[in-house]
Amino acid sequence: MADKAMRMARAGASRPRPVMVAIAGDSAAGKTTLTRGLVEALGPQRCASLCVDDYHRYDRVERRGLPFTALHPDCNHLDIMEQHLQLLATGQPVLKPVYDHATGLLTRPERVEPREFMIVEGLFPLHSRLARACFDVTVFLDPAEDVRRAWKLARDTASRGYSAAQVLAELQRREPDSAAYVRPQRRHADIVVRFAPIPVRDDPPGTPLSAELLLRPTIRHPDLSAVLAQAAPAEGLRTMHLKLARDTDGRPVDTLHVHGYVPTEESRTLQKIIWAQLDEPGEVPESLGLLGGSGARSEPLAITQLLLLHHVLEAGR
Amino acid sequence: MADKAMRMARAGASRPRPVMVAIAGDSAAGKTTLTRGLVEALGPQRCASLCVDDYHRYDRVERRGLPFTALHPDCNHLDIMEQHLQLLATGQPVLKPVYDHATGLLTRPERVEPREFMIVEGLFPLHSRLARACFDVTVFLDPAEDVRRAWKLARDTASRGYSAAQVLAELQRREPDSAAYVRPQRRHADIVVRFAPIPVRDDPPGTPLSAELLLRPTIRHPDLSAVLAQAAPAEGLRTMHLKLARDTDGRPVDTLHVHGYVPTEESRTLQKIIWAQLDEPGEVPESLGLLGGSGARSEPLAITQLLLLHHVLEAGR
Repeated sequence: MADKAMRMARAGASRPRPVMVAIAGDSAAGKTTLTRGLVEALGPQRCASLCVDDYHRYDRVERRGLPFTALHPDCNHLDIMEQHLQLLATGQPVLKPVYDHATGLLTRPERVEPREFMIVEGLFPLHSRLARACFDVTVFLDPAEDVRRAWKLARDTASRGYSAAQVLAELQRREPDSAAYVRPQRRHADIVVRFAPIPVRDDPPGTPLSAELLLRPTIRHPDLSAVLAQAAPAEGLRTMHLKLARDTDGRPVDTLHVHGYVPTEESRTLQKIIWAQLDEPGEVPESLGLLGGSGARSEPLAITQLLLLHHVLEAGR
Repeated sequence: MADKAMRMARAGASRPRPVMVAIAGDSAAGKTTLTRGLVEALGPQRCASLCVDDYHRYDRVERRGLPFTALHPDCNHLDIMEQHLQLLATGQPVLKPVYDHATGLLTRPERVEPREFMIVEGLFPLHSRLARACFDVTVFLDPAEDVRRAWKLARDTASRGYSAAQVLAELQRREPDSAAYVRPQRRHADIVVRFAPIPVRDDPPGTPLSAELLLRPTIRHPDLSAVLAQAAPAEGLRTMHLKLARDTDGRPVDTLHVHGYVPTEESRTLQKIIWAQLDEPGEVPESLGLLGGSGARSEPLAITQLLLLHHVLEAGR
């Protein structure tokens, strides 16, 4: 019952312990983009992120001879990842391994000091009970598979030195491990985020993706009806709405639909209302909603990040 | 009182925990030679060693601009070293950083699995109360300074790519940090080992060094009078003798003098008697007493290692 011991240790810890947030999901599910906006919004003094894909057991050359992909637990030091999560969750620094995605080599480890808020993203942060016991808020990114494939193709050909054919072959090779080990983490998340076009609508190409958030009652979510009540009724409802539903296992759950097709200004109005409730100084941070370095934005991403900020800040209070 | 918590955790640990041995001492004090013979005698299945000099915070190039040497605590991740010692001492694996002495670079970390016996050697294993709380037996290597300088000169010019002038300059540069941070660990060791010529005798050049062992009553030492009683009286006494003395701080202590000048066969006879008391299968391991790869031997080193084996095996029972 190491997970229970960990929960007790955190509850009783005397040294300041960080708020720990997990952002899990498959390769190119948008973890880094979501994380970056949160870290910048909270500021590097208060918040740091780490990627647990650095706990790869083998480098790229060594993996070639192996019968499994990087998405298999045996391909990762998951027990060391758990150990480091426990240390960080109880306020201790770690010397984290480093995997260089550009070269495929394992390199000099880096020291990670716990901050007030720690965002842990990667393929496996929710893999085990013990790992999950280290977090205050857990998120699983579950974009529509077509969307994820397009994102992976774009990223891996642009910045990781692969050809399109290599990326597609790798997606196929990884599929069984993804189904067996990555996607099952979805059921352990407090919040599941799905970016996708809205199927029932016939929006023109180029319409921003919408976000559907599963808000499971495993944590206390903000009162969104109060937020919506502050906006003009039509505007609020166009931007997002909350719907009672059943989870895949039949449990009751709230689903929040954040629409990509609404005018930016309407979405921004709602963002300001949510931000005002967070009791943070200043305006809505510019980093929220940013997609990569190009300056392109996604308003549903910004709203998703604002809801996560609510949880992160609440957990720290 | 993290050290006390650590002692309690080890006493109550439910998973099998390794016997932990510290071998501390300055650069080129003979730590690796002493360690190698012990690991080989116990066999790699039962015993592993690790060098805590791998917890360097900076690589060789980065250290050039710093106001302190590698012998300064600020030049090392000593808190991470403590953390890893605690994990190993409670039977958990660690991902240990690696410093490559040949290139001066920090490289890919390596996984260390706890074995039945763990020998931890380096500059700082006894630096803090918490680190010391992780060990069952602690040793400090304290060779005569002339001897250590000669050893360092020979090693660093042969295998670390330095010139003699560079090594001598480095010895001088390190002296203040050695006096302030490395040598004070001597007082925390259960056993202090000093290799030196015997000053009162006029042995010819080339006579093997003798060993003087301070056996502090902080652990239970073997009954050496029983060992000596089994040897021919003259032979036993020529090879080694025990003398009651006062430690540098006035506390009573046993000193064991192991003479380098006695014929090899006499020393070997005593080694067989000590070995027989250890209840291990087979003959006295060939690795004991070996000095580096040349096949040269030191009988006082072999006897020192046999005494350490006694402690290591006793601690495991």
